[in-house]
Amino acid sequence: MRASENSTANTFTAYDPRTGQAIGPEFHEATNEEIQRAVDAAAEAASALRRLGAEQVAQFLHSIRDEISALGDELIECADRETALGTDRLRGERDRTVNQIKMFAELVSEGSWVDARIDTALPDRKPLPRPDIRRMLQPVGPVGVFGASNFPLAFSVAGGDTASAFAAGNPVVVKAHPAHPGTSDLVAAAIHRAVKANGLPEGTFSMVHGRTPAVSLALVNHPELKAVGFTGSLRAGRALFDAAAKRPNPIPVYAEMGSVNPVFVLPESVDSNAEGLAERLFRSVTLGVGQFCTCPGLVFGVRSDNLDRFQAKLIEQFEQGSPATMLNAAIAKGYQERFEELRKVPEVKAYAARKAADRQHTEGAPGVFVVEEEAWSKSEALREEIFGPATVVVRCRSREEMLAAARRLEGSLTATIHGSAEELQRNGELIDVLREKAGRLIFNGYPTGVEVGYAMHHGGPYPATTDEKFTSVGAAAIYRFARPVCYQNFPDAALPAELQNANPRNIWRTVNGKLSKERLS
Amino acid sequence: MRASENSTANTFTAYDPRTGQAIGPEFHEATNEEIQRAVDAAAEAASALRRLGAEQVAQFLHSIRDEISALGDELIECADRETALGTDRLRGERDRTVNQIKMFAELVSEGSWVDARIDTALPDRKPLPRPDIRRMLQPVGPVGVFGASNFPLAFSVAGGDTASAFAAGNPVVVKAHPAHPGTSDLVAAAIHRAVKANGLPEGTFSMVHGRTPAVSLALVNHPELKAVGFTGSLRAGRALFDAAAKRPNPIPVYAEMGSVNPVFVLPESVDSNAEGLAERLFRSVTLGVGQFCTCPGLVFGVRSDNLDRFQAKLIEQFEQGSPATMLNAAIAKGYQERFEELRKVPEVKAYAARKAADRQHTEGAPGVFVVEEEAWSKSEALREEIFGPATVVVRCRSREEMLAAARRLEGSLTATIHGSAEELQRNGELIDVLREKAGRLIFNGYPTGVEVGYAMHHGGPYPATTDEKFTSVGAAAIYRFARPVCYQNFPDAALPAELQNANPRNIWRTVNGKLSKERLS
Repeated sequence: MRASENSTANTFTAYDPRTGQAIGPEFHEATNEEIQRAVDAAAEAASALRRLGAEQVAQFLHSIRDEISALGDELIECADRETALGTDRLRGERDRTVNQIKMFAELVSEGSWVDARIDTALPDRKPLPRPDIRRMLQPVGPVGVFGASNFPLAFSVAGGDTASAFAAGNPVVVKAHPAHPGTSDLVAAAIHRAVKANGLPEGTFSMVHGRTPAVSLALVNHPELKAVGFTGSLRAGRALFDAAAKRPNPIPVYAEMGSVNPVFVLPESVDSNAEGLAERLFRSVTLGVGQFCTCPGLVFGVRSDNLDRFQAKLIEQFEQGSPATMLNAAIAKGYQERFEELRKVPEVKAYAARKAADRQHTEGAPGVFVVEEEAWSKSEALREEIFGPATVVVRCRSREEMLAAARRLEGSLTATIHGSAEELQRNGELIDVLREKAGRLIFNGYPTGVEVGYAMHHGGPYPATTDEKFTSVGAAAIYRFARPVCYQNFPDAALPAELQNANPRNIWRTVNGKLSKERLS
Repeated sequence: MRASENSTANTFTAYDPRTGQAIGPEFHEATNEEIQRAVDAAAEAASALRRLGAEQVAQFLHSIRDEISALGDELIECADRETALGTDRLRGERDRTVNQIKMFAELVSEGSWVDARIDTALPDRKPLPRPDIRRMLQPVGPVGVFGASNFPLAFSVAGGDTASAFAAGNPVVVKAHPAHPGTSDLVAAAIHRAVKANGLPEGTFSMVHGRTPAVSLALVNHPELKAVGFTGSLRAGRALFDAAAKRPNPIPVYAEMGSVNPVFVLPESVDSNAEGLAERLFRSVTLGVGQFCTCPGLVFGVRSDNLDRFQAKLIEQFEQGSPATMLNAAIAKGYQERFEELRKVPEVKAYAARKAADRQHTEGAPGVFVVEEEAWSKSEALREEIFGPATVVVRCRSREEMLAAARRLEGSLTATIHGSAEELQRNGELIDVLREKAGRLIFNGYPTGVEVGYAMHHGGPYPATTDEKFTSVGAAAIYRFARPVCYQNFPDAALPAELQNANPRNIWRTVNGKLSKERLS
């Protein structure tokens, strides 16, 4: 259903960040009633969805993929107008989005993701017989998804949260990000068509618009909502988390929030190629105008002539860098303010692009800060995320000081180490520390560019996420939206197919503690 | 370490519930400082534990098991004195406790539980090469465990929470339940011996005593604590959950709390054996003086002559039942008050054991309430858990009314259906509803008696637990205390054994989306 229709509430428009001009049409902020209706419809749809076979769920996902692909250039152009991310990037993001949906369809078709476990009866066990016990994962119910500003496709209306929630068999209510409402409407319409084509209940999918926290809170507080997926700022994510935790029946909020993504430059990496490292790091920091959750925001190195060379090259790159249009005025303003805040921290040297940012075009200019570890460790401002094309180089006096700095870090999505393989082996303690600080450890690479696969973990300790156990990217993202249900002594015919003796879906199951595809008799 | 030593704070003793008399010696309520020290030591131990091999963790678990077994009758007698649960039950619980530890040792030795996933590099992929990405589960860090009153061994100091937290490689700080401090000290000493024998850091395990919420909150609020396992009342569990959610860095509280465990008696079950069903249900309700999380507290049936027979037999059983000593004075008093509260609900008929409970001996008397669905649906008091040997029979006018009643239920650990296999097939909608209300569905059985196995799910929607995704019993309980860590482009030698090409631990891994034990080259 389209909960945003016929609203009598506030209206708003998108803005073209390149011009600062409003773009038509007007969008309606959902009323409380509309949000109630959307979740009520989702709750009603939930029972029908639970009865779907895996192939029907997979087919639904394939239909969404086809419908999004069929939007063609209209989608890319609309998203580019609303976000200024550029059509190349957006085509890539669209491909990533549909491939991600395909991955979930394949996961569901294969079927083993339900983690089926069977402990067969032991009628002769003493002192008591053991009953037959079987469990598998099943959908949790209506899921609320909050679209992100920085990925209008891959982390928005039909992004990873929605795809994984559908894959697990749940209805979804999306709160579109107000910075790209037109893009969101196009994708929502594509999903609506897929819902209809697959004969699913209308409440399978709804989208609401809204700019104010009231809309978000009304969604999170609906008693029938069972889980939330969110990508965005620490402040907004924490507000949703707090609201969900205070409910009479608390629900999980899987929020992916701020992350500084520290990079540790071990001596041999600057000894062997200080300039190349600086160039590639500059590209990673400024990719997408620095508007990635995985943008590397802190770079630690041990003082040396080669570190000086690395630093000089990095400064040169940033000073030669070009300002570029950011996602929206609020983000550009926030970046500018953070930049000024850091510039004022005592003992910090700031180097910004020589070409100034043009505020009329919502631009942000690349910048790099350099500070000694001693001063860095005393400044909270220097330890927090900068959302934009900037990074902080922290100069350490020794390996020990670098290790101490690592211990001071808060949770991140990623942590990166550059060096030789032998050096990595000698820095086991650094790996041990970073493993507690991040969800993904990268060697001689860059954190931007998050692969969508089976092994990806896009998560990390707070404040990177609200639950370090879960990922918002990759196949494991489905586990946020499923829960185990256990059947004791059920007749075979009354069990879900996945748990029946004959293993009709031919999935991997844990039978009496051992993985197998065997059929039981 | 033994954080309770040399305390200068309040002291308390255990009480023999059979006599109401205090039992020596005195126990010290942990001071804030002692709790800080215990968690600090755990945080320090965490890094050493993370470096242990799986076999060392398994060996540690086997040592704990041996040390607990070696306590022999001293443990059973002390536990019986403090809880009045009886030596037979406590021997059974001890066996369950050591078998549970053994199961976790075997799980860890086998090793596949870490859910290792490997996406190999695709250097020639266009437009960008795919890096090598590998992830597996690793320990979360210090875990706080709260001992339960009703299982002084299996859900206490070395119970399922502690065993699964150790199995995942975490240090543990236990808050002992104040009703059985002597039993807790014996088990804690056994764990301390195992820690020492295995050459592990002292901070691997600590136990603190305490009667006041301040002790619990100090533990939950320690910044280095990473997760909490709890079994107990809804009020206490929710208080811990709320405190943990409000931390600057929130942590998960896996609380297993109140549960009404509804039983649905379909017509054919009373038609074929009304009396036998009543007898077995009476035994399940009164087992362990009704002090189980899985005690069946609501029984729904459709009015019929045979339901009347069932009800008459059930009433007869309860009236002939014997009062028995409960765990402690607070629980006996709480049960008595709940009983009086329900007795006063309009249109409820109460039937208590003819023999009155002896307050001097902390007794509770079995009792059964009978009410029509219409009246039941209007009373919140009738829908909540009764912790003790009592149950409520709810008479429905029709199958539809029974289904409507099921929809009104809050979350439970279990839901049970009695009937013929054909009847079960005809009641698919009831199964659908109950699947949303409970973690485990039982057919023609009784919810008490929770198997410790691979397929068990002892969890359920709120208020049964604070997170329906997780179980506190069975092999899957380990997943509460582990988090994924992902390695990108790491040299083979720098990876944990579980992720190395040669698969030296010979575990099941998901390689490019397919489960296998293969070695990679």
